Amino acid sequence: MSDGTGVTAETLGSALLANFPGIRFLTRTIPFVASEAEARSVVAGIDADAEAGLDPLLFVTVKNASLRGILSTSRSTVIDLLAGHLTELEDALGVTASEQLGNYHGLGDTDRYFARMRAVEYAIEHDDGQSARALDQADVLIIAPSRCGKTPTTMYLALQHGLRVANYPLTDDDFPTEGLPRAIRAYAGRCFGLTTTPLRLSQVRHERRPGSRYSSLEQCTIELRRAEDLYRRNRVPFLNSATKSVEEMSAVIMQTMKLRA
Amino acid sequence: MSDGTGVTAETLGSALLANFPGIRFLTRTIPFVASEAEARSVVAGIDADAEAGLDPLLFVTVKNASLRGILSTSRSTVIDLLAGHLTELEDALGVTASEQLGNYHGLGDTDRYFARMRAVEYAIEHDDGQSARALDQADVLIIAPSRCGKTPTTMYLALQHGLRVANYPLTDDDFPTEGLPRAIRAYAGRCFGLTTTPLRLSQVRHERRPGSRYSSLEQCTIELRRAEDLYRRNRVPFLNSATKSVEEMSAVIMQTMKLRA
Repeated sequence: MSDGTGVTAETLGSALLANFPGIRFLTRTIPFVASEAEARSVVAGIDADAEAGLDPLLFVTVKNASLRGILSTSRSTVIDLLAGHLTELEDALGVTASEQLGNYHGLGDTDRYFARMRAVEYAIEHDDGQSARALDQADVLIIAPSRCGKTPTTMYLALQHGLRVANYPLTDDDFPTEGLPRAIRAYAGRCFGLTTTPLRLSQVRHERRPGSRYSSLEQCTIELRRAEDLYRRNRVPFLNSATKSVEEMSAVIMQTMKLRA
Repeated sequence: MSDGTGVTAETLGSALLANFPGIRFLTRTIPFVASEAEARSVVAGIDADAEAGLDPLLFVTVKNASLRGILSTSRSTVIDLLAGHLTELEDALGVTASEQLGNYHGLGDTDRYFARMRAVEYAIEHDDGQSARALDQADVLIIAPSRCGKTPTTMYLALQHGLRVANYPLTDDDFPTEGLPRAIRAYAGRCFGLTTTPLRLSQVRHERRPGSRYSSLEQCTIELRRAEDLYRRNRVPFLNSATKSVEEMSAVIMQTMKLRA
């Protein structure tokens, strides 16, 4: 539950629950709780859930002290994700936290908004090698055979970090005897490769084209071996996406390509 | 600093710092800290920063107790974002947190990965009214005049929530005397409109086409008034994007269209 979007409560709440893999949790997000009446209604709801035999855990990011007071009247477990850390910070900084809503996911920074918007548009324009326009402006160029995870990783980097990311598919035509494919050869220093396991690639491709040569284990094995050879020969850093989430791949790419602030 | 991607530490750290608007913070993310040597190097780094007159605050999400022990030797402020809440959770659940890395931003859920991948591809295919294919499968259809924020909001909903989102631009040709544009009329119940202020729209459009009629305050005023009339006449819920972040717009859309889990 949050007085804002709930993004912080969702992120930290989920990270905490991941430490209890033996328990199955149902999750629900209650954003934009702004009034005492709404806070009371949330308390009534979870207390009714508790009566019904559920065991509610309420993760809270709410700034207003009177709303937090209402939440603390609940008989369920209420975990305040901000208040304790704010006190630690006040001590460290020697100043009192602003009484204003410290709204991280509010608009705040117009520049950030523009940067994200431009980055997402750039990513759409340059998805799957569609455009060579302004390729020299790319912060990073993700290359891989079809279905190794280029597109979601590209979008994550654009949306969350405002980076200009192009991606380029390695197809049968693109395996020259040496060097990178012609269209991206000039940007070798900004290329990052993805690979995966043949089994997983076959599984993912099967979703799109069941029973095709494209999705056969044999074809997937060949394409991945060739791609990895290409990366190694051209000193393109790469990672195996098979066991990684979009967030993990993005973090590795930013670190490797020194795109961290 | 994190033993994983750093996404949780970034999100919560930024939410906390937003409460101290009078102080300017430099931020740096240190992901994938896995060994005692790396932890010691982080401590040495921030303690050197402190010597140099900076005032480092280290936000930490690290699972391993011996790494956390090393971090606590720092003379700088170290704020552990997980440990305290994990203890609260252990008490509430009556079980001990897993010794395994509870890796929320790890791959974990293959289904979630596929859902995100498909949703991002759907969003790219249906950006800016480009395709009418499978429009009946959209969870939500965002409509608005050009440059009101359709595309980044669409991508955020796809990437973070795995929703199928199409978006459709309202252009001069699309203002019939009544009803919604023909291409989307069948999906009126799934439409959500965006509007903004004429001044902001003019500013955003000016970025793309400076000094054009398209970016003039007069044209922007006309288009926004017509769009809002269209939303009202057709009972399409809408919001003003001028003062909202992508996260906020997405949260409002999910709540309004009942797309919350």
